[in-house]
Amino acid sequence: MLKNTIYVDLKKRSYYIYIGKNFLKTREIKNLFSINTKHILIMDQVVQKLLSKEFFSDFPIFKKKTNVIVLKEGENYKNLHTVEKIISILLKKKCNRDTTLIALGGGVIGDITGFVASIYQRGISFIQIPTTLLAQVDSSIGGKTGVNHILGKNMIGSFWQPLGVFINLEFLKYLPKKQILSGISEIIKYSIIFDKKFFIWLEKNIFSLLNLEEKALQYCIYKCCCFKTKIIESDEMENSQRALLNLGHSFAHVIETFMGYGSWLHGYAVSAGIIYSAYVSYILNFLSKDILFRIISIFKKIKLPLRGPNNLNALKYVELLKYDKKNSHGNICLILPHNLENVKIHKSIDSKIIIQAIEKSHKNNF
Amino acid sequence: MLKNTIYVDLKKRSYYIYIGKNFLKTREIKNLFSINTKHILIMDQVVQKLLSKEFFSDFPIFKKKTNVIVLKEGENYKNLHTVEKIISILLKKKCNRDTTLIALGGGVIGDITGFVASIYQRGISFIQIPTTLLAQVDSSIGGKTGVNHILGKNMIGSFWQPLGVFINLEFLKYLPKKQILSGISEIIKYSIIFDKKFFIWLEKNIFSLLNLEEKALQYCIYKCCCFKTKIIESDEMENSQRALLNLGHSFAHVIETFMGYGSWLHGYAVSAGIIYSAYVSYILNFLSKDILFRIISIFKKIKLPLRGPNNLNALKYVELLKYDKKNSHGNICLILPHNLENVKIHKSIDSKIIIQAIEKSHKNNF
Repeated sequence: MLKNTIYVDLKKRSYYIYIGKNFLKTREIKNLFSINTKHILIMDQVVQKLLSKEFFSDFPIFKKKTNVIVLKEGENYKNLHTVEKIISILLKKKCNRDTTLIALGGGVIGDITGFVASIYQRGISFIQIPTTLLAQVDSSIGGKTGVNHILGKNMIGSFWQPLGVFINLEFLKYLPKKQILSGISEIIKYSIIFDKKFFIWLEKNIFSLLNLEEKALQYCIYKCCCFKTKIIESDEMENSQRALLNLGHSFAHVIETFMGYGSWLHGYAVSAGIIYSAYVSYILNFLSKDILFRIISIFKKIKLPLRGPNNLNALKYVELLKYDKKNSHGNICLILPHNLENVKIHKSIDSKIIIQAIEKSHKNNF
Repeated sequence: MLKNTIYVDLKKRSYYIYIGKNFLKTREIKNLFSINTKHILIMDQVVQKLLSKEFFSDFPIFKKKTNVIVLKEGENYKNLHTVEKIISILLKKKCNRDTTLIALGGGVIGDITGFVASIYQRGISFIQIPTTLLAQVDSSIGGKTGVNHILGKNMIGSFWQPLGVFINLEFLKYLPKKQILSGISEIIKYSIIFDKKFFIWLEKNIFSLLNLEEKALQYCIYKCCCFKTKIIESDEMENSQRALLNLGHSFAHVIETFMGYGSWLHGYAVSAGIIYSAYVSYILNFLSKDILFRIISIFKKIKLPLRGPNNLNALKYVELLKYDKKNSHGNICLILPHNLENVKIHKSIDSKIIIQAIEKSHKNNF
């Protein structure tokens, strides 16, 4: 039974986010999976092993008819080489523009599949079935697709909206705890950007989330999908406000690029990144000490990292931040929290301040 | 002085096509080349050698400031490998989203540059400065970008509109005759699809075009840009009528893929492809013998090929046509001329008819 449905209003590219299970009960959804369409299911080896059963119970029609492409697992394979590999398989299967790709997996699978869909024969349809908490609250929604380049994360990509997003909470049972933590990091991010009350709720209830209590999970996933939907509807192509969602991400991408893709989980890097951003904001007198500490505390409570790797120093951060997509005219752009529910885009932050903030945060022992 | 300007009305993605030289006289154009923007000029070795001077006389501001990427020449390099190479250079140059790429060259350079622009950091701007007749009348307009896959031409790509198209007829003086012929093939294609009178004009004046008489050239380029603009405005993403522009192209892509990219010029393959399409239409009783012969004659007059390569037989055509992007549900889609100014999309053409048509056309000795 469908418990929650969110409409993402993007005119011709509008779609629904469905939260629940046994999805194939309505005609609209059945149409998406029409037998007249060629479907190609893309997943990784881990998902294939653990979640195929859960998937087929949601979408029994695929048991017989779907073509499957199984990729190696991990952020390390999110590159143009894998894209070319998938395209070769699609061509060999004589897939035309009437093909729909189905991304069954976490952010990596969703990002690659969406990107392939956007460039295969100048664009075909795809459907997101996110299987990690991070993908369910964030990466599967909003049409950002892409792959990594050795010089920077998600440097190659497109905006390409899915036909629909199907979120089944059952998948989360199979996730390792660190993957749950990685997703919670993005949930905290939403609360800082959009909703002080939600932040307070998280301060109190974060362990219910970590323990996958159904009510808490459902509440948080629905809430985050709504936040994301609202901002995408007003700024699909990230010309302005959508950039707020990148709170902590400039630093996070530096960590992920520097350490080699996949060695730090995205949400872990985002946790450290948000704390660095908060310190920059604190040093610039935008953020109070009290809120800085509450932001640090909530991540600390569930043992998310409060800093990046030891071998990455402040100077190196600044050097690598120069590759960030959001920069322009050689200036470093950062998203800074001024308060809970009050986050701002700063287009030109002085390198010295960033260095100072990182070093200060490293000195503080929490 | 600007002689001709065509507005391409695509709402937020609208732009102008300028035909002339000394372009930098108006403020609108100067804004496109603002010194606040980082410009990267992409061209191939041949263009660099022959046309740089002509380009700098049109755009003197670039003499000092533009970064340049020079690629090897030819359709053979229009692939994902070259795309990755360009992206690596852009990243090393720390190009952000405020960068504008400038494609100075023929269809290959325009297609690659546009594709890179569409996927670099999820999309940046680009400008088309087409230097071949084919690019000036066709490929530089309308935002189709892409690269080849070994299994099919333009199989990887996107729709991504340029900021503007600058057409300078002077470039054509440097073109080898076979490149002019290749462009004329597309001009004939437009006349068959859209304008009987224009076809008749071409029947009479084709040698003026071949000899690059300025008035004839200007007339044809302007006319073709108008045809293309009109159809793109009504169907940017090729959901319906834009597909008409693919007259002859399904066969052409088979020839180009089979022979190895670059060994047949695109316009040469299109010439053979249009004749095969005309034969299919004739066999199906859509096209009269008279018009079939007039179509053959106009290509014959300037010695464009009336058939594909000798080692490519009818059966192989049908096999390779199955990869065509326009197909759906396993059926072969072809664009067929029913008459001059009356061309139609056929979504399911019987393989046997195609074989019969090709074999018949091969038997006829013109």
